[in-house]
Amino acid sequence: MTWVHVIGAGTSLPGEPVDNDRLGRRLGISAQWVEAFIGTRTRHFAVDLDDGRVRYSLADLCTAAGRQALDGAGLGPGDIDAVVLATATPDTLMPTTAAVVADRLGIDGVPAVQIQSGCSGAVQALDVASALLARTRRRSARAAAVLVVGGDVCTKHLALQRDFAGLPPAALVNYALFGDGAGAVVLSGESARRGGESGGRSAVLTHASHRTVGAGLAPGQVVEWFGPADIGTAGAGVAEDYKAIEERVPRMSCEAAAGLLKELDWAPDEVDFLLPPQLGGRMTAAITRRLREETGLTAATEISCVSRTGNNGNALPLLQLALLLPRLGPGDRALGVAIESSKWITASLAVEGGPG
Amino acid sequence: MTWVHVIGAGTSLPGEPVDNDRLGRRLGISAQWVEAFIGTRTRHFAVDLDDGRVRYSLADLCTAAGRQALDGAGLGPGDIDAVVLATATPDTLMPTTAAVVADRLGIDGVPAVQIQSGCSGAVQALDVASALLARTRRRSARAAAVLVVGGDVCTKHLALQRDFAGLPPAALVNYALFGDGAGAVVLSGESARRGGESGGRSAVLTHASHRTVGAGLAPGQVVEWFGPADIGTAGAGVAEDYKAIEERVPRMSCEAAAGLLKELDWAPDEVDFLLPPQLGGRMTAAITRRLREETGLTAATEISCVSRTGNNGNALPLLQLALLLPRLGPGDRALGVAIESSKWITASLAVEGGPG
Repeated sequence: MTWVHVIGAGTSLPGEPVDNDRLGRRLGISAQWVEAFIGTRTRHFAVDLDDGRVRYSLADLCTAAGRQALDGAGLGPGDIDAVVLATATPDTLMPTTAAVVADRLGIDGVPAVQIQSGCSGAVQALDVASALLARTRRRSARAAAVLVVGGDVCTKHLALQRDFAGLPPAALVNYALFGDGAGAVVLSGESARRGGESGGRSAVLTHASHRTVGAGLAPGQVVEWFGPADIGTAGAGVAEDYKAIEERVPRMSCEAAAGLLKELDWAPDEVDFLLPPQLGGRMTAAITRRLREETGLTAATEISCVSRTGNNGNALPLLQLALLLPRLGPGDRALGVAIESSKWITASLAVEGGPG
Repeated sequence: MTWVHVIGAGTSLPGEPVDNDRLGRRLGISAQWVEAFIGTRTRHFAVDLDDGRVRYSLADLCTAAGRQALDGAGLGPGDIDAVVLATATPDTLMPTTAAVVADRLGIDGVPAVQIQSGCSGAVQALDVASALLARTRRRSARAAAVLVVGGDVCTKHLALQRDFAGLPPAALVNYALFGDGAGAVVLSGESARRGGESGGRSAVLTHASHRTVGAGLAPGQVVEWFGPADIGTAGAGVAEDYKAIEERVPRMSCEAAAGLLKELDWAPDEVDFLLPPQLGGRMTAAITRRLREETGLTAATEISCVSRTGNNGNALPLLQLALLLPRLGPGDRALGVAIESSKWITASLAVEGGPG
């Protein structure tokens, strides 16, 4: 994949950041508890925390991020050969948010694929987009381009009509852990355009892969959806096995990073930037420590946003890429890992700075 | 894509077929009305029509279809390089049904991608699978293989606790139109194996493409999902604009078929089999008539199952492929069209019989 260039990036986070003081007041828990056990300082919600009104749809956020990525790449909607969007929380099951976002951006007459996924989704989207790009490139002389979008909103799961006073802190973890947002990048067969906001600066997506490793394991996270036939029987909606996540994710992260270093034939000290899994501020910090200790990624600068954005799932690796690109100098190497605890999927990516 | 072979197919339809007499008795409508206005004679439900109990999950059906496709191809789980599953109605949002099915089939350590889609989903899955297959093939000398699965269950939307007596027939259309089921095929870079159930008979997937054509158009179908925050406010869940569907789908089918004939440089009378969109018995018959009249596909034998299976969405093109493959002789040509009315997606595919 040494010819797949990342030529534009965009992000969209809804509304003002919600800090732990405000969140704590709303939920009746202490900001100190959130800080200590989750380690996330702020997050953004598509829903108004006070009145419960949904202020942004997933399509709103993905369209904004997608438009910013197109602008950054110096491309118009007619330049895009496919849209690949990853999310766990589409606005509707049909039409897909991918098709709605394509429409809103004026992208028409090309494939719009939506990948259902959790934390590994953005990497899956980068991978599928690269495969589609490769084919378009083989068939056509002109430079092909694919828009990759990832995002999540927890509006359908963030039940705010409950009496929080009676709930133990453990029942409120998800309110403090998750956030909403979207990220986007444009992949192209040609390096960055001089007309784009990146000023012609090039980044090469060297690698994006993902694999299920869940044989026989119980899911670490389950997100249910309900239809009209379920009304009245609906359960919790979201369930996590935090113990399994805490035990497996750091280990799987180290295995994925070590495997990728070997595959790319990169020495650990040649890696300039590390994009660790973005579970929550505290867990991400712990994983980064282990990645440094066990995989030897000691020199790499950490690119992380989860303590500021909350865990917004499919957006995160693209938010990390958006932070990385302006800092990536010619020849710089970046390595990223994402772990999906649903049915245990490891995903990894590598980016290199082009000649600039 | 002249090197992408379809080397195995499988299907799974839950329980016994539900005929119009039985459906009519349950809903308090006449079997004659269903026959006349929907034109579907039987369908299969994953839920027990009498007691409302869910008897099959989507993962159950997809696993059964996938296993049959693997057996037909003479492959084991370790031979599969990726799983691509398309559905509009996953069992849960996380983990994906793709990951669950991969696990149940013993497929581990490879990508499992789930595409969210409606009637165009199986073709999208064939397309993405072909792109992933092409890449695996370029990287590896051995024959790569990808399992493609499509399926839907309407268990979360088939509300059976209602008082049907008070409802007009129009409110019951979806009960008569939809059904549940799954289909699967194995795509491979090498032609059919002698050890497989196909006896080494080969079919080539010449073409699979899809594109959104929904710029500015309102969706023809909306399928909502609900989370815990929605409980109490949940609406109808499924809404169709039948007028727009009836007006646009036949025209879009003819445009898609004509475009594909042109792209492949096939004369209409060279097409031996036609796989028309599977909306419902009556509408599919009307579309086939128009395809014969306007596109000149007069000699093609129709391969259709919807009047027997109901509209089971992402399963349908794969069920049609499963019916086609045993009948496809050396050099035979088949052309298929699927139209998704959600945000208006046209999808088309072409299959040719190998030398046998």
